[in-house]
Amino acid sequence: MRRKFIAELQVRDNVDEIYRVADKQVRSNRQGNDYLLLQLMDRSGQVSGLRWNSGQSAYESFQKGDFLRVMGTAQLHNGAMQLIVQDFEPVPRTKVNLADFERTSAAEMDQLLAELRTKLSSLSEPHLAQLAQSYLSDEEFIARLRRAPAGIKTHHAYEGGLLEHVLQLLRVADSIAPLYPQINRDLLLMGVFLHDIGKLDELVFEGEMVYSDPGQLLGHLVQGTMELDRRIARISADTRAEFPEALKWRLQHMIVSHHGQLEHGSPKVPMTLEAIALAYLDDLDAKINQASDLIESDRNTDSNWTNFHPTLNRKLYKPSLE
Amino acid sequence: MRRKFIAELQVRDNVDEIYRVADKQVRSNRQGNDYLLLQLMDRSGQVSGLRWNSGQSAYESFQKGDFLRVMGTAQLHNGAMQLIVQDFEPVPRTKVNLADFERTSAAEMDQLLAELRTKLSSLSEPHLAQLAQSYLSDEEFIARLRRAPAGIKTHHAYEGGLLEHVLQLLRVADSIAPLYPQINRDLLLMGVFLHDIGKLDELVFEGEMVYSDPGQLLGHLVQGTMELDRRIARISADTRAEFPEALKWRLQHMIVSHHGQLEHGSPKVPMTLEAIALAYLDDLDAKINQASDLIESDRNTDSNWTNFHPTLNRKLYKPSLE
Amino acid sequence: MRRKFIAELQVRDNVDEIYRVADKQVRSNRQGNDYLLLQLMDRSGQVSGLRWNSGQSAYESFQKGDFLRVMGTAQLHNGAMQLIVQDFEPVPRTKVNLADFERTSAAEMDQLLAELRTKLSSLSEPHLAQLAQSYLSDEEFIARLRRAPAGIKTHHAYEGGLLEHVLQLLRVADSIAPLYPQINRDLLLMGVFLHDIGKLDELVFEGEMVYSDPGQLLGHLVQGTMELDRRIARISADTRAEFPEALKWRLQHMIVSHHGQLEHGSPKVPMTLEAIALAYLDDLDAKINQASDLIESDRNTDSNWTNFHPTLNRKLYKPSLE
Amino acid sequence: MRRKFIAELQVRDNVDEIYRVADKQVRSNRQGNDYLLLQLMDRSGQVSGLRWNSGQSAYESFQKGDFLRVMGTAQLHNGAMQLIVQDFEPVPRTKVNLADFERTSAAEMDQLLAELRTKLSSLSEPHLAQLAQSYLSDEEFIARLRRAPAGIKTHHAYEGGLLEHVLQLLRVADSIAPLYPQINRDLLLMGVFLHDIGKLDELVFEGEMVYSDPGQLLGHLVQGTMELDRRIARISADTRAEFPEALKWRLQHMIVSHHGQLEHGSPKVPMTLEAIALAYLDDLDAKINQASDLIESDRNTDSNWTNFHPTLNRKLYKPSLE
Amino acid sequence: MRRKFIAELQVRDNVDEIYRVADKQVRSNRQGNDYLLLQLMDRSGQVSGLRWNSGQSAYESFQKGDFLRVMGTAQLHNGAMQLIVQDFEPVPRTKVNLADFERTSAAEMDQLLAELRTKLSSLSEPHLAQLAQSYLSDEEFIARLRRAPAGIKTHHAYEGGLLEHVLQLLRVADSIAPLYPQINRDLLLMGVFLHDIGKLDELVFEGEMVYSDPGQLLGHLVQGTMELDRRIARISADTRAEFPEALKWRLQHMIVSHHGQLEHGSPKVPMTLEAIALAYLDDLDAKINQASDLIESDRNTDSNWTNFHPTLNRKLYKPSLE
Amino acid sequence: MRRKFIAELQVRDNVDEIYRVADKQVRSNRQGNDYLLLQLMDRSGQVSGLRWNSGQSAYESFQKGDFLRVMGTAQLHNGAMQLIVQDFEPVPRTKVNLADFERTSAAEMDQLLAELRTKLSSLSEPHLAQLAQSYLSDEEFIARLRRAPAGIKTHHAYEGGLLEHVLQLLRVADSIAPLYPQINRDLLLMGVFLHDIGKLDELVFEGEMVYSDPGQLLGHLVQGTMELDRRIARISADTRAEFPEALKWRLQHMIVSHHGQLEHGSPKVPMTLEAIALAYLDDLDAKINQASDLIESDRNTDSNWTNFHPTLNRKLYKPSLE
Repeated sequence: MRRKFIAELQVRDNVDEIYRVADKQVRSNRQGNDYLLLQLMDRSGQVSGLRWNSGQSAYESFQKGDFLRVMGTAQLHNGAMQLIVQDFEPVPRTKVNLADFERTSAAEMDQLLAELRTKLSSLSEPHLAQLAQSYLSDEEFIARLRRAPAGIKTHHAYEGGLLEHVLQLLRVADSIAPLYPQINRDLLLMGVFLHDIGKLDELVFEGEMVYSDPGQLLGHLVQGTMELDRRIARISADTRAEFPEALKWRLQHMIVSHHGQLEHGSPKVPMTLEAIALAYLDDLDAKINQASDLIESDRNTDSNWTNFHPTLNRKLYKPSLE
Repeated sequence: MRRKFIAELQVRDNVDEIYRVADKQVRSNRQGNDYLLLQLMDRSGQVSGLRWNSGQSAYESFQKGDFLRVMGTAQLHNGAMQLIVQDFEPVPRTKVNLADFERTSAAEMDQLLAELRTKLSSLSEPHLAQLAQSYLSDEEFIARLRRAPAGIKTHHAYEGGLLEHVLQLLRVADSIAPLYPQINRDLLLMGVFLHDIGKLDELVFEGEMVYSDPGQLLGHLVQGTMELDRRIARISADTRAEFPEALKWRLQHMIVSHHGQLEHGSPKVPMTLEAIALAYLDDLDAKINQASDLIESDRNTDSNWTNFHPTLNRKLYKPSLE
Repeated sequence: MRRKFIAELQVRDNVDEIYRVADKQVRSNRQGNDYLLLQLMDRSGQVSGLRWNSGQSAYESFQKGDFLRVMGTAQLHNGAMQLIVQDFEPVPRTKVNLADFERTSAAEMDQLLAELRTKLSSLSEPHLAQLAQSYLSDEEFIARLRRAPAGIKTHHAYEGGLLEHVLQLLRVADSIAPLYPQINRDLLLMGVFLHDIGKLDELVFEGEMVYSDPGQLLGHLVQGTMELDRRIARISADTRAEFPEALKWRLQHMIVSHHGQLEHGSPKVPMTLEAIALAYLDDLDAKINQASDLIESDRNTDSNWTNFHPTLNRKLYKPSLE
Repeated sequence: MRRKFIAELQVRDNVDEIYRVADKQVRSNRQGNDYLLLQLMDRSGQVSGLRWNSGQSAYESFQKGDFLRVMGTAQLHNGAMQLIVQDFEPVPRTKVNLADFERTSAAEMDQLLAELRTKLSSLSEPHLAQLAQSYLSDEEFIARLRRAPAGIKTHHAYEGGLLEHVLQLLRVADSIAPLYPQINRDLLLMGVFLHDIGKLDELVFEGEMVYSDPGQLLGHLVQGTMELDRRIARISADTRAEFPEALKWRLQHMIVSHHGQLEHGSPKVPMTLEAIALAYLDDLDAKINQASDLIESDRNTDSNWTNFHPTLNRKLYKPSLE
Repeated sequence: MRRKFIAELQVRDNVDEIYRVADKQVRSNRQGNDYLLLQLMDRSGQVSGLRWNSGQSAYESFQKGDFLRVMGTAQLHNGAMQLIVQDFEPVPRTKVNLADFERTSAAEMDQLLAELRTKLSSLSEPHLAQLAQSYLSDEEFIARLRRAPAGIKTHHAYEGGLLEHVLQLLRVADSIAPLYPQINRDLLLMGVFLHDIGKLDELVFEGEMVYSDPGQLLGHLVQGTMELDRRIARISADTRAEFPEALKWRLQHMIVSHHGQLEHGSPKVPMTLEAIALAYLDDLDAKINQASDLIESDRNTDSNWTNFHPTLNRKLYKPSLE
Repeated sequence: MRRKFIAELQVRDNVDEIYRVADKQVRSNRQGNDYLLLQLMDRSGQVSGLRWNSGQSAYESFQKGDFLRVMGTAQLHNGAMQLIVQDFEPVPRTKVNLADFERTSAAEMDQLLAELRTKLSSLSEPHLAQLAQSYLSDEEFIARLRRAPAGIKTHHAYEGGLLEHVLQLLRVADSIAPLYPQINRDLLLMGVFLHDIGKLDELVFEGEMVYSDPGQLLGHLVQGTMELDRRIARISADTRAEFPEALKWRLQHMIVSHHGQLEHGSPKVPMTLEAIALAYLDDLDAKINQASDLIESDRNTDSNWTNFHPTLNRKLYKPSLE
């Protein structure tokens, strides 16, 4: 039988399917009864799963990152789909069709990486080209980039999500750059490539998907800046050639300022044209993605309006133009 | 002798040149002496002109919009160029080379309008195409669009500036639209075309460049929404066909929300994908233009940094990547 | 037996009464069981009704605006009364005493309209008098005004509420005007009459009470401004006399600015004396009404203090001065 | 010759007139030359006076509160009138027509006080009536109230200004009270009478008009609350009857909360209906006064708009409705 | 059997113990069933107690401040411990070991008071020393100080908490004073002693612990300022010697400004060195206490991070440095 | 003759003294005349110097960091002392008594460094002790620390200011630590030592005192974090022993969060007890220093109040307690 993906769940669907555990918690309700709150995922998305009257021993019967066969029913709660889990059992990884859990197949991922290489091979400034090459030829880096999500509870919260996000932003930057000749295309593209590189350290994405301790203490802006510091030191040591200091600072400034405002966690606001453009494009892409997700995931057919979205701080008008 | 344009003025230049009066005021300094404060312009930009010890009678000897032959010296004051005017005399319009005062020549303007027609002729939704056609075939509208600036003290504060701004935004929207298939390209482009249409009513741009009374009382967002209301009523009356109400509301919503936030004067935040995209692209374009202008107009060679810019709320780093 | 009005409900009352459905939703609780959440109303007010273990088919057995016979029990939840519905059945409109659902009787409404006509007939400025007359003699307008609420979840959320609110504000404005001779009484009164006129378009109040789509996309400030634009165009066409433009802008400015601040959704702050006075009086009236409602509806006799009110952002001290 | 009052000064007027010194300072300009900056007043208003090239010895030749014969010229500086003082000489109080310096004549003041007595004698709650009586029969209090301004640099910054402000607010409160039966008229009127009573301690208004040290350290809200505390203790001691505690707290709460918001210096927000009404009416009166003053004092005939006003944070539209 | 203190409760503990009722409420859940929500306390802390299916009659069977024998089970709900109460019965005060309910024993309290006396006896400025003496020799004041908490739902929310807080702040002030010679140690210490003295009036702490009506209407900043006003008047009357006015204002300013900012309820910001130091030290002490409490009370061993804390607006990293 | 130090200047003093140039600019006044604006300093402080009618050639006759013999007169301008420079001439470094330009003599600096070594030698945690030792034995680091200011226009804007600031904060932290046993003293002291270490890179302090380019692009929080990253890498490489990662993150977190809030430029808020304490103590020390400086430097004897201070956003009350 064809698999029921999470994105396809409809209210009142009865489910008997394998999902992966992104997160798990034991909680008590006000009546004092324990229940399990699971975050279940497959390649199509995430859904909360609730197992009532179930406590510590059930909790300990599997790990984050494990696969569970889940029997239950789909419900809408506060506008979001959730699964009421009647029963579940762990399933060994070997019995699982792993392709169901990878948003992007290995072949698609290869294609994305190829596009990334093409974009970065177009850089003409020699130091930037060398820096890009250092990353692209670093196998461990590439392996981690294939697996990294772009966030925990956001649009790109799945393996490969970071690569997808960076590539989409490279495309947008590349399409806009010719319209603003005062912007240096090489710098803008390299800043786009590097801006979220600290997420490889900020997030844990082997099995579970959570923030790491240093990620919470320092954040991917500071972590990315340090990573670039070390990378450039290594290149200089390897090549015995000085990487221009001012160029390093510009790139680090783009990483550090890409949240655009102090209140959003950037210790410096963007102060170069390329840093300003990067911060805007990153925000534009995030907002359009959040808004499309909100519209797509809204399953209430009674109204032309989505529910109120706390981060966007608004409702959205759903009808598309026929 | 070749004309000295405002954008070419250097500190200590002696000037004997014809400029146009964008604004004029009599002021008194603290010592109680009157002086004239002029805003002088040509096609390359604006500069303040100060005529010391000169009062009401000098003030009344010419009008806003007139041309003056100005003799004086260029100075830097708080990082901005200004002209100390030793003497001046009105010059009749007939003695002036009007091409020196048009940022865009009639031929260039024709080219911009041609590009605008091409962009809008690509709309496939029939009502939007009809609406665009109604504007493009309205000779009075086109005549006003050729003359309208996009603002009073901003990047596009010159005749034709509005058209340039709208066209640049159409280009950006058009280049990005294919990367976001969830956005309706027709709606986005039409929203871009219409978003600042209220500026034709908000600004006075015959001779002087100031805000009109209704412009200050209502603003171009509300004025543009009413203009579209009347235009669509006229089309419906002319064609005896109903323009779809929901489509009208969507377009009006894009006009009304394009400042993005209540605090920036939009009575509604953007609540459709196209309105969100429009608000971001308009802001991106404005910020990149403001930032480039700040860097270009900074004439202090001692420092890698511009002066602090109150609207951008920051200094900018000037060196471009060699 | 005498009817039990919503405003008279006491904790633990058993109810068997007819109410009207202002809104209805199916929801699921965390245990995955469906329930109906109803907004029930009569002329005395609104109350939430909860029908546990009841889902889609019950939901579809009646429409918004219908009348239901409701059997249930009154409860206090988070300081607000609610009805736990044990059972319900639709009741045809013909079996209902409609007077129970009209806050204001037809006779009282006639009286309010008469007072409105008196107030507006006192305007001495001829164009304002003519404009007022145009509205007062428009039967469709008057018919809609009789039915319009002043909001969805506020003090005047009932048929005729808008008229009551406008009339109360006219009384306040009229009583204060003589104390501030610098304020033009005609303008102030006309601004009061027009300020919420866009609510006739912003709200849907036939049966259900919700925001319309254009209401959410544009808002009653912009809708009211456009309505006045069309009304004055019609008057000018009918009378072949120009309505003074500056007077139109002043009135539109009062509509557009009556929320007082950009953050509250006014695209312009009040910039005339009359606009300033209107915004203050509207806010004063709203706050006193909200505060009295909060004190009156608080049924907790243990404390001198109401519950915390999120919009007012405070608790209130309840005892009145003996 | 008829006196030239400050409110009548026109640009370029030559002045030889007696004014009173509200404040005086020696300053140096950037060239390192000393000058005197005076605040001159008569009953019509205040104006800055500048005496160039004049220093410490001139400064010490008179006191704040003294009368000076001033010879000079009127100028407009940044939209405000100022006097360039060519010469001045102290004039003994006995040579001055004191009526020129009292905004309100003794007879008018008697009339205002009579109106105050009438308003307060209408209070029906016996303790409030007794409290009012205690103030009205306190000759020292009445004497200070006759002289007190309502502020230093505001609408009512002249002797008797506090009484005028309190009386105007009593009139407004009295006219609105019947329209809001849920508001206790006695409490509202008594709150209005008491709300600024701390200004008698906050301001110094014998000769000079400045803030007192305790006024700056504590503010009139806290000072007024303490004053009421002592007054009621005295009444209780005198009458050997307890003033109801809850009534005292209500009145003190109205004093303490009348700035409406924490950010405006009220340590508590208004939490009774009367306190809410008081805060709104006080703010309404202040804003209408500030706005009328701005329009009246604007002497620029070129524009329909006043200068930008930093406190109101806007420009105002000046034309009144013909 | 050894008593199970609230601070020692573990998830799933079965409890049969005597606790004191700090607060009680009847609530209904969404299903329409009543339950009791209790705040139970002993000397180790507070915990919420929930008695399901229990209503008005149970509610009336005991008073706030009473002692209850409680049988139930401990649960974790949203990261906080709570007791599900199966049964309870009132216990007369005479059957209770009162030492279990006093955080600080009488002997310890004597010791704290002795330390307070020592600190204050070190003041060298004679009027401050006399003022301190007036408080320390006032038996009723001392008796109330022994019982007063420092707040309702905060770190020092238990009898004697105010004394502990004031004493800790005296220690901190005393240890820092020598490092800042520009600060007057006597003033700083006296300000610390007085800053929260209004809490004796703001809070009710006989049996129940709640805010008093005047406490909510005026707040401890204003109440403390009035208390000092009366105290100094009494000292002056008793000693027939004037207490220096400026010294009184300084102390009152320290009370009034000790929340540091208008938004935090101080009607004046600190404007003396001692007031600035007081506000900072009070805030530092509060934040370190809140943060330690959050870390200590977090019982989730799965994570290095506490739950998100709404007042601190952050999570905290729990591991201590080994 | 005894030297006239900048801190000793009185209004109208005639000066003939050697000062050092911290900064220099050519500006034009509104009349179009050039002047030099100098920042002059000696060990007692800074003062602005104005040389009227002096332009580019005078500007180029000396460098930032040079010593000038200055002849001129002291003036008060907007409450700040300034020097009107009549004449000046460069003085070779060899002719200058360098002790006049060092706030702290070499001997005093040795003493401060000795105190620093003592404080840090008291650390008991071995890795922290080793890390401290690495800095203290790094001669280049110590040499730079001796010269570094703590800021450009602040309390510690002089050579050695950073050391003084760090040492004072170490003293405060050390005196408070015993009162808060939940705080780890070693971590707190090490965090204090490291928190501003990035200022060695953020500031340029050889001759001139300005922000470096990387300082403006990245800021001392990010620069300090990277410096610690490199230092620990070096220690690990030298000792072939791993420095505990979690300990490094904690220290970096303290650096990164020490501005306390996102709006103040910290990309993360403090999330450990020690980071919270550090941010508070740094702010307390800064505010007390700013406030004392404001009071000390105010030379207006007419008023008990300083001028309004824009950063502190208030005036201060100057009298100290006699």
